[in-house]
Amino acid sequence: MSVSAAGGASDDLVDLVDRLRTRNPRAVGRAISMVERGGAEAAALLSRIYPSTGRARVVGITGPPGAGKSTLVDRLAREIRERGETVGILCVDPTSPFTGGALLGDRIRMQGLATDSGVFIRSMATRGTMGGLARATRDAADLLDAAGFDWVLVETVGVGQDEVDVVSTVDTVLVVAVPGLGDDIQAIKAGILEIADVFVLNKADRDGADRVARDLEMMMSLGHPTRGLGWLPPIVRTVASRGEGIADLLAAIERHRLFLAESGELDVRRRAQLRLRVETILKHRVLDEAEKHAHMEREIARGYAERIDPYALSEELFEDLLKAGARR
Amino acid sequence: MSVSAAGGASDDLVDLVDRLRTRNPRAVGRAISMVERGGAEAAALLSRIYPSTGRARVVGITGPPGAGKSTLVDRLAREIRERGETVGILCVDPTSPFTGGALLGDRIRMQGLATDSGVFIRSMATRGTMGGLARATRDAADLLDAAGFDWVLVETVGVGQDEVDVVSTVDTVLVVAVPGLGDDIQAIKAGILEIADVFVLNKADRDGADRVARDLEMMMSLGHPTRGLGWLPPIVRTVASRGEGIADLLAAIERHRLFLAESGELDVRRRAQLRLRVETILKHRVLDEAEKHAHMEREIARGYAERIDPYALSEELFEDLLKAGARR
Repeated sequence: MSVSAAGGASDDLVDLVDRLRTRNPRAVGRAISMVERGGAEAAALLSRIYPSTGRARVVGITGPPGAGKSTLVDRLAREIRERGETVGILCVDPTSPFTGGALLGDRIRMQGLATDSGVFIRSMATRGTMGGLARATRDAADLLDAAGFDWVLVETVGVGQDEVDVVSTVDTVLVVAVPGLGDDIQAIKAGILEIADVFVLNKADRDGADRVARDLEMMMSLGHPTRGLGWLPPIVRTVASRGEGIADLLAAIERHRLFLAESGELDVRRRAQLRLRVETILKHRVLDEAEKHAHMEREIARGYAERIDPYALSEELFEDLLKAGARR
Repeated sequence: MSVSAAGGASDDLVDLVDRLRTRNPRAVGRAISMVERGGAEAAALLSRIYPSTGRARVVGITGPPGAGKSTLVDRLAREIRERGETVGILCVDPTSPFTGGALLGDRIRMQGLATDSGVFIRSMATRGTMGGLARATRDAADLLDAAGFDWVLVETVGVGQDEVDVVSTVDTVLVVAVPGLGDDIQAIKAGILEIADVFVLNKADRDGADRVARDLEMMMSLGHPTRGLGWLPPIVRTVASRGEGIADLLAAIERHRLFLAESGELDVRRRAQLRLRVETILKHRVLDEAEKHAHMEREIARGYAERIDPYALSEELFEDLLKAGARR
């Protein structure tokens, strides 16, 4: 596909966006692949659909492996469909940085939903680019939003900084806790306490559920970022495998959305999201530029041979890049 | 502390580096805090110690929560000490991006080692800066190297991209597997298969150890990046809690080091490490520059108000930055 100068767009792109707006699954899939690849095409596509974004409820689901996130997302999607609304689902797996493969399990699991045109499911995996996954995921959420999906659910698989980056670009963050995962994993949960808008205590019929709830309440009593604004994350108990508590969970998400809108926090978050996205794009832009105009590869080889330290070498590259920019 | 112009260094810095070279724990700690903060001081410090680096054996230890990495690191450190060599340990916890706290557990666990001047232990946690943890950890490893520690062990807590980034800056990567963690976590392990130089099958006395070993062998039979170079990761069985297999593990690490040196792969890796470090520094440099010379904060607010898409806004900022550079 060719991309014309800033502001314009190729016929292909116009056509793709037109079909995207009808929620055509192939067009949606193709558009997401485009933002995954990044570059000028992704930028042109995003610019075109951006004015139509901001309407969908974008919800992130994170928590340790084994917490039942996939089942929960599945049930949430069914509940949303029963209400007559549409839903796009992005399954993010930052733990497969090299293979770049999709989560086959997710696709199989969602089979019941796969034939429903009101549902779109896509797995996204890191392709080795630092910061690339969060950017691509947020871009994909925008595409689903522009395509007219009422909800976008972003499910993350792991428990690290990547997940934090990914869910930092959504409006409402669900953190899924579960009884009986052991202390090591509970410690990880403490790290994502601050980003939770709603806690989901899944497998709540298991022994130890009350203890986990008490632990969460205790941790929250130590302080939470939105407390002063009038929102303390509720703890919603679910047994996702039996569909229990799912309606309550949707209600809690909607209460949070209302809080965001009424408190002005929605604007604060979305401005922060925009900043995060701009930062990520700038970071990749500078590397592209260093490659093209400052002979990065050659300079790295020279720096390595001459044992130049990474800071000094970076400074040289950055100065070269500015000089090249000045000559343009 | 003041930092003078490029090439020079303040008296304080010279003094700090002198004390660092005697493995003075307070000097080492202060130097690591300095690289954690980043900026001009970190750059000046790194430039000064960089010529003395490259001697230590830098080993990364990663794997899922519950695999017993901490105990393993503890035992490795004792074994190294028994051989009369010194060891610096960095415990990296990317799952606490907001608290920035150290892993108290690690410090307590290592108490037996804490009074030994041949051992230095430090916990490092993300401070919310994307890419910052991998950079700071690698800088800290350089400091320990320059301080004269024979070994540097970098232990990561989680299982995501951060861990991959962190261990991408070491020479030898140990991936710890363990029987009985369930399919969800085994799936995560598949993602880090490619970065393993040595597999540690810990808790090898448990049921299911043979099955995990078979799984690992099966995965490796599908291909491994260093296979064609003559290195297929060995699977070393340990029971770290009883100190079993630790000598074998050290021997495997040394065999890997020999392979790196003899195959020329050490140069390949270290050049790649330098590139990764330069990229990370450049990424942060461009954000600093955007803040200082392109009025990032103001432009984000304007972009949000005018609903400019993140790509277009980034492009505007980057052009402003180049123009500002041209005027300098």
